[in-house]
Amino acid sequence: MKVVKFGGSSVASATQYKKVASILAADPERKAVIVSAPGKRHEGDTKTTDLLIRLAESVGERDFDESAFQAVLKRYQDIIDELELDSSLMTEVEGHLHEVISMYRQSKDRLLDGLKASGEDLNAKVMAAYLTSLGRKATYISPKRAGMIVTDEPGNAQILPESYPEIAKLRGVEGVLVIPGFFGYSYEGNIVTFPRGGSDITGSIIAAGLDATEYENFTDVDSIYCVSPKMVDQPRELKELTYREMRELAYSGFSVFHDEALQPVVHKKIPVCVKNTNRPEAKGTRIVASRELDGHPVIGIASDEGFCSINMTKYLMNRELGFGRKLLAILEDEGVSYEHTPSGIDNMSVILRSHQLYNGQEARVLNRIREELQVEDLYVERDLAMIMVVGEGMNQTIGIASKATQALAQAGANIKMINQGSSEVSMMFGVNVADVEKAVRSLYHIYFPAEVGQKA
Amino acid sequence: MKVVKFGGSSVASATQYKKVASILAADPERKAVIVSAPGKRHEGDTKTTDLLIRLAESVGERDFDESAFQAVLKRYQDIIDELELDSSLMTEVEGHLHEVISMYRQSKDRLLDGLKASGEDLNAKVMAAYLTSLGRKATYISPKRAGMIVTDEPGNAQILPESYPEIAKLRGVEGVLVIPGFFGYSYEGNIVTFPRGGSDITGSIIAAGLDATEYENFTDVDSIYCVSPKMVDQPRELKELTYREMRELAYSGFSVFHDEALQPVVHKKIPVCVKNTNRPEAKGTRIVASRELDGHPVIGIASDEGFCSINMTKYLMNRELGFGRKLLAILEDEGVSYEHTPSGIDNMSVILRSHQLYNGQEARVLNRIREELQVEDLYVERDLAMIMVVGEGMNQTIGIASKATQALAQAGANIKMINQGSSEVSMMFGVNVADVEKAVRSLYHIYFPAEVGQKA
Repeated sequence: MKVVKFGGSSVASATQYKKVASILAADPERKAVIVSAPGKRHEGDTKTTDLLIRLAESVGERDFDESAFQAVLKRYQDIIDELELDSSLMTEVEGHLHEVISMYRQSKDRLLDGLKASGEDLNAKVMAAYLTSLGRKATYISPKRAGMIVTDEPGNAQILPESYPEIAKLRGVEGVLVIPGFFGYSYEGNIVTFPRGGSDITGSIIAAGLDATEYENFTDVDSIYCVSPKMVDQPRELKELTYREMRELAYSGFSVFHDEALQPVVHKKIPVCVKNTNRPEAKGTRIVASRELDGHPVIGIASDEGFCSINMTKYLMNRELGFGRKLLAILEDEGVSYEHTPSGIDNMSVILRSHQLYNGQEARVLNRIREELQVEDLYVERDLAMIMVVGEGMNQTIGIASKATQALAQAGANIKMINQGSSEVSMMFGVNVADVEKAVRSLYHIYFPAEVGQKA
Repeated sequence: MKVVKFGGSSVASATQYKKVASILAADPERKAVIVSAPGKRHEGDTKTTDLLIRLAESVGERDFDESAFQAVLKRYQDIIDELELDSSLMTEVEGHLHEVISMYRQSKDRLLDGLKASGEDLNAKVMAAYLTSLGRKATYISPKRAGMIVTDEPGNAQILPESYPEIAKLRGVEGVLVIPGFFGYSYEGNIVTFPRGGSDITGSIIAAGLDATEYENFTDVDSIYCVSPKMVDQPRELKELTYREMRELAYSGFSVFHDEALQPVVHKKIPVCVKNTNRPEAKGTRIVASRELDGHPVIGIASDEGFCSINMTKYLMNRELGFGRKLLAILEDEGVSYEHTPSGIDNMSVILRSHQLYNGQEARVLNRIREELQVEDLYVERDLAMIMVVGEGMNQTIGIASKATQALAQAGANIKMINQGSSEVSMMFGVNVADVEKAVRSLYHIYFPAEVGQKA
């Protein structure tokens, strides 16, 4: 039994709906379908979710922006009309939106969550109706019926463990289950959405709950690549990678998956297959618990910008019991989360995402460090990028660091930081943002030399 | 005005005393002399300090080991006899030891500190007498008279800042000042010794207090070398290095200086010159606040053994606010001090000196980490060595990391950890103890290629 999730562009129009139907028809193992809200149909189009956000923001005490409302309706109308589905479906869509608005009018947060969730919810209803119209046995299953109970934090729901036995009961429902992604219900009965990557999260939860043999994630690319196609032309496609490799890559800039979405399937070791709705015959990329090593210790290179470092020096720092703990306590106290804390003998740096040091916050944090820790030298370095070189078993390979640093030297990139030794599957380099593209390209060429010929 | 310190082997015998006298005579700027206790005269000899420790341990309620007492006396007797000094000096030596024993008999700690300090104290008195016998104006100055007031922690004294104005007054004393190293007096009037490297500390304090133009540190090597002569034959001598370079090298295994001894002179930017008592004509090594860079970004390579790492994994660790702070709080609570904390996304390591994880302590620390932090995977890796590559400005040099990692790969050393980015003057590598010698040799050859010809 497989769980299949379709991203926004895969369910954006009638044309895409038809592809989904034929993908489902091609494999009877595809038991549960998770759908996103209709995404962009073309460059410059607006996602339904963004239309819904605009609508939510326009809702006043008694009214709302009628044009925003109509824009949302139009997305579903287009699909329903083109697929020649029963027009009573549009009455349901309209009624649903009115109901959410009147239910949550008093609370901005709830209203936003309720309307955002409508995008997926209505799309699942339309998809179920379409599959039924094709003569398939298909049932819309609301997250409430599925038993998806979540924490009651708007926009940041977490699934509660008691949901899983409930989800398992869906195995008894006949035919294809069509489930909206992105949200669950709190114990109080409120609609609450998941954080970023929400439909991936739903798919992962349902796959774990149903104990699926595979979680297929349909998107609009043939596979995951070993490096961003924005930096390298036609980079190598990845046939298979492990959960940990995926997590390191996703964390460091690969946007295929939000890195936390996979948690439920990782836990159950259910393989994930990333496939292309528009080219379902392409093999895609499998993400698995473990894989055979093929002699290439590096599988991917990711990069992410927007970091900075707080650097401090204090003579005899290393003899000062509690220095590091006090520093981290100040950051925690100020609500600043950090990524790494490389340290020398008399110096320590904290690497963090720059957006956390907005104006007032930066001064406050620096003042506290200066005064409470009595450091001698203290400064912030901005515009840092992190490059992550990822691969199972690379920590056991002699010469990996040598190759990587050679590539960076050849690119003329000054290495601001190297972090190796904690993770067994990655090595991290901090460089200036200005150096990141040439650094990544140079790393790609050194680790994937066969592909170099393809490059300009 | 220079302050000159002579180490144990430089003042171990009458022959060495004569060298000291001629070194002092050669430069009238040498105003203050700090002496250690008589050290080893030859391979297999016993240092006076160790004889004094044996004596201290033998002291009972009413008696002590007479042979231990005589062994101490013999060291001074030999010097006094050969230099034909007044025999009344021996009466003073004997009387001093009896006085210390009777004063501190009731407290083991005080007695040990008092007798250890006698080694330096008596040697300073004999040295002053010898210089006077040569017709020089020389005065023994006790740390009490010098105004060296220290914290009252036996074996771990710290100088108090109010000492410095007192020390400055010694500038008015005529002739050469002969000051015993290694100890000061607490406000209560107790003799308290400094931690490891004690005479170096005294020299550094006196140099700072007198505002000396130079602190000369006489020992038994011509210079500081860029790498341990135990690992490489005839390594390059260092003409000049900065305080920070010295501190990084000393911290990581260079035993010329205890790394904290220099603090007072560093503060005042007084140059330190390491010279050889047995070959005073050799230029020695100067340690200064800043130096001109000569195009060689690496100045030295040090290594130290006896490290281990505690490694832990926890899925989504990086999203857990306070994880690092809680981990460090556990270590602090258990009295375990750490060196570095490299971290990945879902993993973190703590590098520490292995001796801190003795049997019961290891189990207790691991249990607390497992239970309080709910980590998924937790293990200790032992037999780690740290290699430090040091040089001013190397962080600005592109390709430094590449050269270093290439050298380690060529040596077949698997890099367990790389730490770069916090210190501006060093890069650190963790390797297995078994790989350390070949790794250091390979690094030496890559950074100091001109010297390779000298090697076997």
